[in-house]
Amino acid sequence: MPTLILVRHGQSQWNLENRFTGWWDVDLTEKGVAEAIAAGELLAEKGVLPTRAFTSLQVRAIKTLHLALEACGRLWIPETKDWRLNERHYGGLTGLDKQETRERHGDEQVHIWRRSFDTPPPVMEEGTDYDLAADPRYAGIAVPRTESLKLTIERVLPYWEGEILPVLASGETVIVSAHGNSLRALVKHLSNISDEDITGLEIPTGQPIVYEFDAAMKPGERHYLKDR
Amino acid sequence: MPTLILVRHGQSQWNLENRFTGWWDVDLTEKGVAEAIAAGELLAEKGVLPTRAFTSLQVRAIKTLHLALEACGRLWIPETKDWRLNERHYGGLTGLDKQETRERHGDEQVHIWRRSFDTPPPVMEEGTDYDLAADPRYAGIAVPRTESLKLTIERVLPYWEGEILPVLASGETVIVSAHGNSLRALVKHLSNISDEDITGLEIPTGQPIVYEFDAAMKPGERHYLKDR
Repeated sequence: MPTLILVRHGQSQWNLENRFTGWWDVDLTEKGVAEAIAAGELLAEKGVLPTRAFTSLQVRAIKTLHLALEACGRLWIPETKDWRLNERHYGGLTGLDKQETRERHGDEQVHIWRRSFDTPPPVMEEGTDYDLAADPRYAGIAVPRTESLKLTIERVLPYWEGEILPVLASGETVIVSAHGNSLRALVKHLSNISDEDITGLEIPTGQPIVYEFDAAMKPGERHYLKDR
Repeated sequence: MPTLILVRHGQSQWNLENRFTGWWDVDLTEKGVAEAIAAGELLAEKGVLPTRAFTSLQVRAIKTLHLALEACGRLWIPETKDWRLNERHYGGLTGLDKQETRERHGDEQVHIWRRSFDTPPPVMEEGTDYDLAADPRYAGIAVPRTESLKLTIERVLPYWEGEILPVLASGETVIVSAHGNSLRALVKHLSNISDEDITGLEIPTGQPIVYEFDAAMKPGERHYLKDR
């Protein structure tokens, strides 16, 4: 039975510091490392062992994947990394402290930027400290200057349809280690969640979410692996 | 200019315990972890940054790759794992203490098993503790029951020709994280070393070896990156 495991990366340094992160490449904290290992131990305990892996181009998701796979004895499975699984690009908010941003722009504006479905944050200016346009990992890619959740979904879903779903349909147990918003894109699609509701849905860090698919590749109910 | 980086995994638990390892999946020691990180730091220092990675299906080589890539800021590059880069299969010697084996079979016999080009060690009996025939990572593969260096070369070189060389020829900087004997196979081929001489050539752990290729894909001299 094709099985999909979604894991949001463990706590990152900027989760801890309460800063907007987006595409900026921030490492896991010690707590984040422990969360990733615990996720892998849970996979082993429940006997849900990945046979194929997908992740983003961001270190916090890649390391979460590696730590989880090592903990369940599956470090040897094939893995594919792609920018389309990256976190939502936070535009000009990248690097800013969330509290300071609220004080400057008001709670309401920040809430819109964080939780609106289709209003992107202000664009990232060229040449700022957090500009990734010249990063070799994004060579050949039109790096976004900002993204709403809607724009994020528009690059995640074609990747899902084109690259992940065919692998899953061949009967594999696929793990996707990614980010709050790239995983929201998948959960919205698979669990048929409205534009209004998806922005309020929290994806917990390091907590494997599982979907089982039937022969027609229709996903079943979403559940946390810990509850099985 | 196409550039090839070869790295032998850092010290493993059985390197430390002086046991025949082969395909058995032994983890890195703390020293091995440090060697892998140092290898990556050297890549960063010398500005020889991999753009594509290949490794075996064995944890000690995969972890060496990941630690080295993280240390040089390249954890995000594509990686491919394949059993044909695995260590030589040590047959029935797998798991045995090297000193005890010498006492039982004599120095000369052990020397032949370790250093003969084409005499394989005794075969691994079916169902012994170290039998990997049922390991899911080798599903669909005829797991060898023993291998000489010659037999190892016979599965490494087709992989080199078919999978690694074309990537290198497209201008990539390729890192191969592998094992003493799978790397001997590559070095023998690239540096045109005789059957007699190759068995005595030691590949040091965690020490990047570099080949640069010309436009005709002829490899230059082999050198240690540390000496550049």
